[in-house]
Amino acid sequence: MSVSVQPKMSSASSEVSVTLLGATGSIGSSTIDLLKRQRDRYRVEAVTANRNAADLAKLARELGARFAAIADPAAFDDLKSALAGSGIEAGAGETALIEAAQRPADWVMAAISGASGLKPTLAAVERGATIGLANKECLVCAGAYFMRRAGAAGAQVLPVDSEHNAVFQALGGGRREDVRRVILTASGGPFRTWSAEQIQNATLEQALKHPNWSMGAKITIDSATLMNKGLELVEALHLFKLEHSELDVLVHPQSIVHGMVEFRDGSLIAQLGPTDMRVAISHCLAFPERIDEPAPRLEWSRMATLNFEEPDMDRFPALRLAREAMAAGGAAPTILNAANEVAVGEFLGRRLGFAGIPALVEATLLAAARRGISKEPASIDEAMSVDHISRSLASEALPAIAARAS
Amino acid sequence: MSVSVQPKMSSASSEVSVTLLGATGSIGSSTIDLLKRQRDRYRVEAVTANRNAADLAKLARELGARFAAIADPAAFDDLKSALAGSGIEAGAGETALIEAAQRPADWVMAAISGASGLKPTLAAVERGATIGLANKECLVCAGAYFMRRAGAAGAQVLPVDSEHNAVFQALGGGRREDVRRVILTASGGPFRTWSAEQIQNATLEQALKHPNWSMGAKITIDSATLMNKGLELVEALHLFKLEHSELDVLVHPQSIVHGMVEFRDGSLIAQLGPTDMRVAISHCLAFPERIDEPAPRLEWSRMATLNFEEPDMDRFPALRLAREAMAAGGAAPTILNAANEVAVGEFLGRRLGFAGIPALVEATLLAAARRGISKEPASIDEAMSVDHISRSLASEALPAIAARAS
Repeated sequence: MSVSVQPKMSSASSEVSVTLLGATGSIGSSTIDLLKRQRDRYRVEAVTANRNAADLAKLARELGARFAAIADPAAFDDLKSALAGSGIEAGAGETALIEAAQRPADWVMAAISGASGLKPTLAAVERGATIGLANKECLVCAGAYFMRRAGAAGAQVLPVDSEHNAVFQALGGGRREDVRRVILTASGGPFRTWSAEQIQNATLEQALKHPNWSMGAKITIDSATLMNKGLELVEALHLFKLEHSELDVLVHPQSIVHGMVEFRDGSLIAQLGPTDMRVAISHCLAFPERIDEPAPRLEWSRMATLNFEEPDMDRFPALRLAREAMAAGGAAPTILNAANEVAVGEFLGRRLGFAGIPALVEATLLAAARRGISKEPASIDEAMSVDHISRSLASEALPAIAARAS
Repeated sequence: MSVSVQPKMSSASSEVSVTLLGATGSIGSSTIDLLKRQRDRYRVEAVTANRNAADLAKLARELGARFAAIADPAAFDDLKSALAGSGIEAGAGETALIEAAQRPADWVMAAISGASGLKPTLAAVERGATIGLANKECLVCAGAYFMRRAGAAGAQVLPVDSEHNAVFQALGGGRREDVRRVILTASGGPFRTWSAEQIQNATLEQALKHPNWSMGAKITIDSATLMNKGLELVEALHLFKLEHSELDVLVHPQSIVHGMVEFRDGSLIAQLGPTDMRVAISHCLAFPERIDEPAPRLEWSRMATLNFEEPDMDRFPALRLAREAMAAGGAAPTILNAANEVAVGEFLGRRLGFAGIPALVEATLLAAARRGISKEPASIDEAMSVDHISRSLASEALPAIAARAS
């Protein structure tokens, strides 16, 4: 081998190029906050948004992006006008989101939420980029397929979600065969100490009061049912290539410890940190290095008492359903997720009681089983097809469940 | 480069050869327990003991060791008779301990306690072996020198002590520059909740009742004064190449979390485990892999409540003295350790009150400063010389301190 002497270059020589799929949401904004603090380390290739052309154009200009894509074609003209004279290319529609993902960025934040994040995220995976994965559906609806494609393309998938990021950190490059168990922590939500009867009759206002995190309505309800943790189990199964029996949940009301790994030699490694998503995002952004982080440090006083307890599957049947779907595998997690989205939407619309959420999910899983829908989705299109059918089945089951639970 | 095809070999080809310096103590016994469970993975090269020739010979035969060395020359004849016909070589005295360390073993457990562990451990370091380090004095009395020699020889030093092993695991191969702080946990000892006055008047019987660990008398008293944690800070400083300001202690009465690392991005990684030294020993033995471990698993119920609080330097002045000695550097930690050994010995002999322990340490540090003893030991002999002078100074200061504190 020969060693060539490199001319001394500016810091730009080791610059990391970054694309943000979903730049205007909370994860996108937090990522941008970090990027702006490290301008000599990162360069922005492309940014995307759903329909807010004005915000997207402003971000693209601020970050010096080369390409901006808007999902909603109706917003394309606004985007083009807002970018006029900037030299930044504009695109619209799903193909533009995919183009944004395909452009040559080293690191891609996959933060488009919902099913519309599937294809753009996969496009970034297919070209072997490093992915900061914030989209849940890639792993919940098509996890086995998604991770196979990532493996084949050599794409590294870094989890942005606090719990999965904690587990990733706790694994610390250890060998898969040395892992005995992975534990995700759950705050327990607002109903942690409530009786089964109280939980069944919980109101929308009560369910929306999350003790530790400020999040969107859908995920706040998922935290109240513990379905959120169930979906995270499914994600962890695929991310870390685990058996369902190797995954556990511990309720930890302080939300200081985010995840743990138990190794075969009896050691547990845990990640702790403030409840600030920038901790996990910065970890993904800089991995395998670390960068200074603007979130307030974890104060020792916040660690004065940390509690852990096993979750109660009777009071929180959504977690039981998720565990069963994870154990069943195949299409079950995709069905579970779709039914839950319908159920939570109905609960948010006050058309279904709190107890109706797991009841509707269970009814949908049964209906899907009767239809013989069980095969693991072998593509994004198959996953989306299972998702659509499941939503229909949930809607069909809804009137009976809503009547029974009221 | 050329690649040669290796003939397929038996598992013996990847066998790890192990030497146990201090085979008959509690760490040696725990290590042997692990080795016996993995006979196809490990082969024993040499074993040493202080003066129990019968036990040493029995172990050497059981383990199939090639060499057995006894520290006490008076026990040499007993050892030779006990090994007669076994084909196992025997040796006696310090040179035999050093010879045991020098023999070609991949991995060496350095578990000879006290100053007599210094030279044998250094001998293993000098030939670049991987060291499971259980001897405290190497780092407390001559830490800078010891780690420099390890670095020069390419010897990997793996900490066997629970707290340091926890930190080593929590670092997980991360970059030194990404570490913001290292935290050692302390049980707080039997006097954690006692008032300053109660602590000052503590009896020997009270000080010997440690809440979580069953250990020797000296280290149990060190846990009651928190000097143990102070000495561990000094060890951590050298082991992990930290500044004294990057080290902290948190009192954690449950002794479930053994150590933590805070990184620059706000994440803390912690190691948790049962209070069983085999967890740390097995980690060192198998590193960077892990092996199954016979200690009982950590039960979730033991994690129901974990508490953390900052230590009180006023009630536990030994910890303050240790921090000051660590910050001063040079010979100060060596003096601190020697004075503490004298003080604890006097306390165990009921010739000094509990409050006299830190008082005697402080008086010795002042006496040494007056003599101008401050230079960092640049060899084992220099460290042992500082140790001897400090013991004399402590003995000189003793009558006044004992009189004052009674």
